Amino acid sequence: MNIDRQRCLTELKEFVRIPSVSSQPQHAPDVKRCADWLANHLRQIGLENVRVINTQRHPIVYADWLHVPRGPTVLVYGHYDVQPVEPLNEWRTPPFEPTVRDQNLYGRGACDDKGQLFAHLKAIEFYLRNTRRLPVNVKCLFEGEEEIGSPNLKPFVARHRRALACDTVVMSDTRMLGADRPAITYALRGALSLELEVKGAPGDLHSGNYGGALHNPLQALCEIVAKLHDRSGRIAIPGLYDRVRCWGTRERDYMARVGPKDQEILAAARAARGWGERGYSLYERTTIRPALNVTGITGGHQGTGGKSIVPARAVAKIDIRLVPDQQPAEIEQLLRAHVAELTPATVRSEVRTFFRTNPAVVERNHTAMRAASVAYRKGFGVSPVLVRSGGSIPVVNEFQELLGAPTILMGFALPDDSIHAPNEKFHLPNLFKGIDTCIAFLREVSCSAGARRTQLAVVL
Amino acid sequence: MNIDRQRCLTELKEFVRIPSVSSQPQHAPDVKRCADWLANHLRQIGLENVRVINTQRHPIVYADWLHVPRGPTVLVYGHYDVQPVEPLNEWRTPPFEPTVRDQNLYGRGACDDKGQLFAHLKAIEFYLRNTRRLPVNVKCLFEGEEEIGSPNLKPFVARHRRALACDTVVMSDTRMLGADRPAITYALRGALSLELEVKGAPGDLHSGNYGGALHNPLQALCEIVAKLHDRSGRIAIPGLYDRVRCWGTRERDYMARVGPKDQEILAAARAARGWGERGYSLYERTTIRPALNVTGITGGHQGTGGKSIVPARAVAKIDIRLVPDQQPAEIEQLLRAHVAELTPATVRSEVRTFFRTNPAVVERNHTAMRAASVAYRKGFGVSPVLVRSGGSIPVVNEFQELLGAPTILMGFALPDDSIHAPNEKFHLPNLFKGIDTCIAFLREVSCSAGARRTQLAVVL
Repeated sequence: MNIDRQRCLTELKEFVRIPSVSSQPQHAPDVKRCADWLANHLRQIGLENVRVINTQRHPIVYADWLHVPRGPTVLVYGHYDVQPVEPLNEWRTPPFEPTVRDQNLYGRGACDDKGQLFAHLKAIEFYLRNTRRLPVNVKCLFEGEEEIGSPNLKPFVARHRRALACDTVVMSDTRMLGADRPAITYALRGALSLELEVKGAPGDLHSGNYGGALHNPLQALCEIVAKLHDRSGRIAIPGLYDRVRCWGTRERDYMARVGPKDQEILAAARAARGWGERGYSLYERTTIRPALNVTGITGGHQGTGGKSIVPARAVAKIDIRLVPDQQPAEIEQLLRAHVAELTPATVRSEVRTFFRTNPAVVERNHTAMRAASVAYRKGFGVSPVLVRSGGSIPVVNEFQELLGAPTILMGFALPDDSIHAPNEKFHLPNLFKGIDTCIAFLREVSCSAGARRTQLAVVL
Repeated sequence: MNIDRQRCLTELKEFVRIPSVSSQPQHAPDVKRCADWLANHLRQIGLENVRVINTQRHPIVYADWLHVPRGPTVLVYGHYDVQPVEPLNEWRTPPFEPTVRDQNLYGRGACDDKGQLFAHLKAIEFYLRNTRRLPVNVKCLFEGEEEIGSPNLKPFVARHRRALACDTVVMSDTRMLGADRPAITYALRGALSLELEVKGAPGDLHSGNYGGALHNPLQALCEIVAKLHDRSGRIAIPGLYDRVRCWGTRERDYMARVGPKDQEILAAARAARGWGERGYSLYERTTIRPALNVTGITGGHQGTGGKSIVPARAVAKIDIRLVPDQQPAEIEQLLRAHVAELTPATVRSEVRTFFRTNPAVVERNHTAMRAASVAYRKGFGVSPVLVRSGGSIPVVNEFQELLGAPTILMGFALPDDSIHAPNEKFHLPNLFKGIDTCIAFLREVSCSAGARRTQLAVVL
């Protein structure tokens, strides 16, 4: 199979160089530029009906190739937006100057999700260049808002259900267990992203003159945050665990057998010790159990040295991960009620929600899941295991709900790829094996559909 | 008395315009420039032996006039450095572009301490211009490190005890109770300024993939900070109250009679409710009781929107105010031991100390205190009350210890002057009444010394 690896890498670097940070307003023009670059690339590789569709914030890019009558249709989903890059000083090379070191491409979005999305494009290009056809019908749907909770994708999919109709969705935005340990993700956690502000006096005050007489908003914030977990590592929001599904021995045994061990998770995090809810492995704590994380706190003096103030306000950003059958809107209400309950009369608090995402589970023995398994064996020479991810991909539920199609999470990322962190990278052998896997996947989907049609004919 | 108010204001604006922020390394040249400006001004008003003395960080400015043989010597102390100005966007006019609005001069340092220090200079100038003499010997000692805990002043005073020998120190860096309610401060709290860092994994991690399996350093920091106070508003560091002096009914009754009421303190802070240790008025909580304040927290994502991370580290800046007979070094050890005790094995913590200052009390019926009382009556037309301050002035103890001299805290600041905060101001009528008070003070010190000499002669 003749993939020009050098050209492929050059093109991917061009893609990564565009700082398409969706959450930061100053990067909105870059997100638009990135959408245009992607659309242009889709045209170049031979896809048809290429469109950049504006939304209320960042555009959606669409393309298709639909020349297999009665053949199955695969919708390839991905996102071209990326996470913020701060703290910038921790990057060894600038986040938007993609650089190859030791078989890895470093840069924000190199892995999440530009590099992984790219594997599908190169697979499509491979067929169209070599055979002028694809083995199945393909629709491509790439969004620029995944990192901010995909606010405009769901309405878009709902509005265009017929145009987006498909048998299977495939996306690559998840992790393998190691370079030689491919994995298909069959479950994702939901997410609830919000911020909590605590306010005291209208302005900063001298901590000598007022210290001891007023409730310090930073202290009050800490007191509230400290009460969001109990001593055993469980989230202390009343009612939060009420709908958490209890998995039986069979599922937990399977997870224990194929999933990452505590030591592997700690090694990937370069952490000395685990933490969290008793009675669960680290893999279980990050997949079948909810989690609440403070992702940032700002308040008072931020510079070097000291400053003698009682700050006027303090803000904590909070990320809650949810599992079946928790509902984000319900959890948000529980959190709001708990914060209101915890806020003393000496300060005021306010909760602002950024976004909500449902948890998702995909059938482990769906035919497309089996096609993906075969494809990995072709691409990586090893059978993949089926794993759960602790992350959230809002659209997986939406595709199920609106298109009635399962999403195959065929990830090529590695645990040490530092996604969302400084020095994000993509392991280049995974890019090229990933392309081979995507090539094989389209063929396998076609074959299994053919086999189904034959079986059906025999039965009839 | 002929003070040229317009010229005085023009000069003070020049002084305030220099951004002499002592805690921020980028302002070191400005601090030096400010010292030079001040030295030049001391020469202009007729003082002698003017010197700018370099220290390990920011210079000390000295000048004197010693032509009253056997007369008393007053050492005028002040500081020409200022606090940082952040958050800059909350200033109505830029902090280093001094602006007059409604009889107030706005600008960083306008009140603390450039404006107040200036009142003494203008009093000295008044005598030297009009009579070519001062009623007493005067030494001026102005430092550029007060806002960072005066690290180099104490060694300097210790080295030059003989040259700095004096009967009384006077400084204006404290508050009155209101525009018509002058006050002499007779007690100050000590201070201990430090920062607490909590560290987890070496880098930020994805909160989806790791959330629930690792102890979040921001959460751990909040859990530690929340345990620095108990539910009743007392500091929960074991042993911290052991040496806190208990004042009798006489002192507390005096404080209740002359000190600010709870409602006045809340009104000045524009705060709705008080907070803190039960059984004490807000005035008592900020003066005769210790206080612990978190003055800043930084960790994780600081920008707009959300970011899905478990941050690698988190830092809290902490300011502890101390009262007699607490010792800063001992309290520091108690805090360090408590933090070590509170830090779980799942994270690491580190405490770094910025500076330590002892609490101080001045004799209420010292002759110089009485001279100051008379002076206020001349300057403001009202007798001053004697009050305690919650702030800290490191040098007051040092002058007592090294020079054997009491320090008269003759402040001209108002409760709403926003010192250390955005929109710091100095009430201009207080500047001019302050000058008159300083003029009267030097004469009163001279008279009471004369009276003492006479009394002594009579007795002999």
